[in-house]
Amino acid sequence: MPSRPVRRLDAVPNPHPDRDYEVAMAIPEFTCLCPMTGQPDFATIRIRYVPDQHLVELKSLKLYMWSYRDEGAFHEDVTNRILDDLVEAVRPRWAEVTGDFNVRGGIKTEILATYGKRPEIA
Amino acid sequence: MPSRPVRRLDAVPNPHPDRDYEVAMAIPEFTCLCPMTGQPDFATIRIRYVPDQHLVELKSLKLYMWSYRDEGAFHEDVTNRILDDLVEAVRPRWAEVTGDFNVRGGIKTEILATYGKRPEIA
Amino acid sequence: MPSRPVRRLDAVPNPHPDRDYEVAMAIPEFTCLCPMTGQPDFATIRIRYVPDQHLVELKSLKLYMWSYRDEGAFHEDVTNRILDDLVEAVRPRWAEVTGDFNVRGGIKTEILATYGKRPEIA
Amino acid sequence: MPSRPVRRLDAVPNPHPDRDYEVAMAIPEFTCLCPMTGQPDFATIRIRYVPDQHLVELKSLKLYMWSYRDEGAFHEDVTNRILDDLVEAVRPRWAEVTGDFNVRGGIKTEILATYGKRPEIA
Amino acid sequence: MPSRPVRRLDAVPNPHPDRDYEVAMAIPEFTCLCPMTGQPDFATIRIRYVPDQHLVELKSLKLYMWSYRDEGAFHEDVTNRILDDLVEAVRPRWAEVTGDFNVRGGIKTEILATYGKRPEIA
Amino acid sequence: MPSRPVRRLDAVPNPHPDRDYEVAMAIPEFTCLCPMTGQPDFATIRIRYVPDQHLVELKSLKLYMWSYRDEGAFHEDVTNRILDDLVEAVRPRWAEVTGDFNVRGGIKTEILATYGKRPEIA
Amino acid sequence: MPSRPVRRLDAVPNPHPDRDYEVAMAIPEFTCLCPMTGQPDFATIRIRYVPDQHLVELKSLKLYMWSYRDEGAFHEDVTNRILDDLVEAVRPRWAEVTGDFNVRGGIKTEILATYGKRPEIA
Amino acid sequence: MPSRPVRRLDAVPNPHPDRDYEVAMAIPEFTCLCPMTGQPDFATIRIRYVPDQHLVELKSLKLYMWSYRDEGAFHEDVTNRILDDLVEAVRPRWAEVTGDFNVRGGIKTEILATYGKRPEIA
Amino acid sequence: MPSRPVRRLDAVPNPHPDRDYEVAMAIPEFTCLCPMTGQPDFATIRIRYVPDQHLVELKSLKLYMWSYRDEGAFHEDVTNRILDDLVEAVRPRWAEVTGDFNVRGGIKTEILATYGKRPEIA
Amino acid sequence: MPSRPVRRLDAVPNPHPDRDYEVAMAIPEFTCLCPMTGQPDFATIRIRYVPDQHLVELKSLKLYMWSYRDEGAFHEDVTNRILDDLVEAVRPRWAEVTGDFNVRGGIKTEILATYGKRPEIA
Repeated sequence: MPSRPVRRLDAVPNPHPDRDYEVAMAIPEFTCLCPMTGQPDFATIRIRYVPDQHLVELKSLKLYMWSYRDEGAFHEDVTNRILDDLVEAVRPRWAEVTGDFNVRGGIKTEILATYGKRPEIA
Repeated sequence: MPSRPVRRLDAVPNPHPDRDYEVAMAIPEFTCLCPMTGQPDFATIRIRYVPDQHLVELKSLKLYMWSYRDEGAFHEDVTNRILDDLVEAVRPRWAEVTGDFNVRGGIKTEILATYGKRPEIA
Repeated sequence: MPSRPVRRLDAVPNPHPDRDYEVAMAIPEFTCLCPMTGQPDFATIRIRYVPDQHLVELKSLKLYMWSYRDEGAFHEDVTNRILDDLVEAVRPRWAEVTGDFNVRGGIKTEILATYGKRPEIA
Repeated sequence: MPSRPVRRLDAVPNPHPDRDYEVAMAIPEFTCLCPMTGQPDFATIRIRYVPDQHLVELKSLKLYMWSYRDEGAFHEDVTNRILDDLVEAVRPRWAEVTGDFNVRGGIKTEILATYGKRPEIA
Repeated sequence: MPSRPVRRLDAVPNPHPDRDYEVAMAIPEFTCLCPMTGQPDFATIRIRYVPDQHLVELKSLKLYMWSYRDEGAFHEDVTNRILDDLVEAVRPRWAEVTGDFNVRGGIKTEILATYGKRPEIA
Repeated sequence: MPSRPVRRLDAVPNPHPDRDYEVAMAIPEFTCLCPMTGQPDFATIRIRYVPDQHLVELKSLKLYMWSYRDEGAFHEDVTNRILDDLVEAVRPRWAEVTGDFNVRGGIKTEILATYGKRPEIA
Repeated sequence: MPSRPVRRLDAVPNPHPDRDYEVAMAIPEFTCLCPMTGQPDFATIRIRYVPDQHLVELKSLKLYMWSYRDEGAFHEDVTNRILDDLVEAVRPRWAEVTGDFNVRGGIKTEILATYGKRPEIA
Repeated sequence: MPSRPVRRLDAVPNPHPDRDYEVAMAIPEFTCLCPMTGQPDFATIRIRYVPDQHLVELKSLKLYMWSYRDEGAFHEDVTNRILDDLVEAVRPRWAEVTGDFNVRGGIKTEILATYGKRPEIA
Repeated sequence: MPSRPVRRLDAVPNPHPDRDYEVAMAIPEFTCLCPMTGQPDFATIRIRYVPDQHLVELKSLKLYMWSYRDEGAFHEDVTNRILDDLVEAVRPRWAEVTGDFNVRGGIKTEILATYGKRPEIA
Repeated sequence: MPSRPVRRLDAVPNPHPDRDYEVAMAIPEFTCLCPMTGQPDFATIRIRYVPDQHLVELKSLKLYMWSYRDEGAFHEDVTNRILDDLVEAVRPRWAEVTGDFNVRGGIKTEILATYGKRPEIA
């Protein structure tokens, strides 16, 4: 069995930096651990951003999400940290991260955090 | 059988108070009693808020909802009271509570109340 | 068999008149008669309003809807009349009535009428 | 306003009596009165049958359904009576009537009655 | 506030005892307590039966379901007990009870119990 | 067989001309011919408008739609022509016509045209 | 404008006549005329068959369906006639035709006719 | 962080062993590792069984599913092993396990394995 | 650009050959060419089989499906050929292949072919 | 087999250039190759535009999409290039292209690019 991947988001050059356009990605296979009980949590992470000079490299994004598998993480915190890491990695003009977590104790939770001001795109 | 829980919402520190972000929670298992007939009413309660210095603690939210189980409550009133209690507990920058009640007498009712002005997010 | 109910909407005091909030009700069991042919028409009536000092009393709303059962009514007219009666009964800050009528002659019709200017609620 | 139609189902000749085939009809606009309270009940009536020498004439079916509008009728009884009337009118090889009634008191009810043994049709 | 209703299912005469037909009822508003933790459980109860000489009276069914509101009950047990009570109350030719319980601990549970052999209908 | 109807939209007086309200109609049974190949095309036509002094008469609308059955018509053109005819017939304060055409050559096409500026209705 | 196509279903050789397999086709764009009123009717025609030595040629099926466009046809009759024509054209081991017609007078009608005994597949 | 739970399914007495009834459970939060690449796999596991003398204890089922989190497991193998473990733990009269795995390489896979012959339950 | 893959399905040993169980796979990304016009066709291929001594290896299945990308293939023929190749590759106890092709000329086509007699599973 | 079509979008005159209206097209059958691995990628391309003097000719659009079948193309790049080609071909007043790509590595990607400022259309 390979060990867990390093947490890192790679950037690749944006082929159309002269235009404001949106990239939207959904990762329905996110899992981490509850910091209180150590039990697994499951979520769909959704990312939307308007790239500036760089795009997120897809394979590194997959490994990045995988890197949370053994880590304890509160819903509100992990969603904001993913946004911070995305912003640092590709310096987008605008970005939004949604953490859509499964029901726990009869309560469904969804966290939505954004960075910057969204350029006007249709 | 344990007795009904005390009605109280606990607050925990917001790990990212420097950013406006949204927390959305759905509680599909809300039940109270009709103040006119004493018969059970059922609803889904949905909460959205932008935290300031505090978040709602999840377990206390579950117990808070449970505390209405034996109480008579009008649809319009209980939805506003949940909003009031949420605002008092975590002093959010903005909050919204929706009470989505089951059909009674062939009529479906949904109450929507908000507090403050929503910061611009996404 | 009881006779048809009198057409009347009762008002009850709004327990939270200091806040702009929305009440939404759906009545999927509305039926009246086509004034041209005398044949039954069926619709879902949807009401949304922001109460001022009064709320619509639910049982009177059920009877009010029932009172159209033997009456000839054009789609556009009856939707506007329900709005007028609602406004007169509870003097809301804002109100909207939608009449969503079943297919007749291969055509589906929906009428939407509003009263006042909607206060800003999330 | 025209008075209520007479309760009668008309038959027309089956153009293909040599073959077992199925006719299925759905009438989502059925309404009658509750015999206990006099209040309106609403249902979707579904009919399936394998015709023998006759088909149900569609316009008479529409008027037949309309004829229940002012009549008190229990769910279980009215569904069986529609089946009886259908059988008497067209003497099908097999027939099934479903009465799918709207929620009352938080309970949804559906009645299913059949006549004869269904011929084997894929 | 009225006290909890007595647990009792009333029977009314079947108006069509000469025919095998099916009655299906769904009660989406069932709640009881977890016998381990005392916390509320929620379920949709579905009942199907072929009546013999009696039908279940609807209002008593509503009160019967309500009577579990303060009682601790395991999923498998309560579903079977509802079936037993139904059988005792109306002596149906066949009956089926399904208890469709909400997610607990990331697991959704549904219990299905039947009584007798279903007559061939449709 | 009757011949095709004349293409004409009739107007009837608006019973509530003092209020801006919306009428929405969907006609899922529109068919015309492809001007290139002569083969049938199928579409759902959707109309929304805010009436001024007149409403569209429903039966004439049905016949109007029927009148395209034998006519060759490009998607973009026919949608705009229906809007023009509607505007001429009832002089609405605002109107919108959508032509939602079935897949041809693996491509789904939808045309949306509007007239005037929509009054503010919730 | 080309004239209406001749009503004819062409057959092509079945490449796998040694195996019982099923071909299922749906034609959502069927239209004919009501023989009573001359007004258009619309339906989805669904065909399933187990071929013997021949398959239905697809383009001829499209033209065949088109050929009903100007013809008066009762629902029950036209569904059976399509089955007859299919059987004559390709002599299948088994066939089924469903005519799923749009709502008329508040009633939805679906006709199902079969030919032969279906071989056991899946 | 607690270590992974031991793989064990606990049994509790069946309160109604005299009746054949079905227990159905869905666990949408199953994850293991791909034995080829070490990368995470995700699945919904569905279990249905007819208990004999014992039921599966719910909390042990949750921990059992969790115990696969760090283990390499082929789709076909793990589904059959879960069935084997279930059978050993509660000796059901009949059991079925479905492993419904997420898309990999553009292919969605679902494995279905059963034990014993299902008693006749509605 | 790499050249198209060789058409070959690989087999791997079945880890549970002593049990009849079902493997179901869906491949929504199948494309080939129309032999008449050379234009692309698109389909979802669904496979279900009960393995004997071997399973289909997943990566070879993905490449196998890809190998049709440049090939002309009739719907009925290609579905049967995939079944033949599957049977030859893994000699299943039973197998079923469905080819669910996109609309062409307003007609949706689905082909279903099976091999052997399905063992009784669930 | 015909060779791949030349990549070219043809324009036809806009029959209603005096009005701002929207044309929306969905092409669910787009496929290209991954530039990294050479393996097929699949997407739905959606186009919306407000035409000025010209419309996109539908058949050329179909062939244009087909022309990507053998070409390596990154998601972000190909969506922007389709927008560029559309703009050059018909010089719209506004245009939007969405590339909605299938899941790869557990990640779903959608790219949205626009040209110009959308005129106000309802």
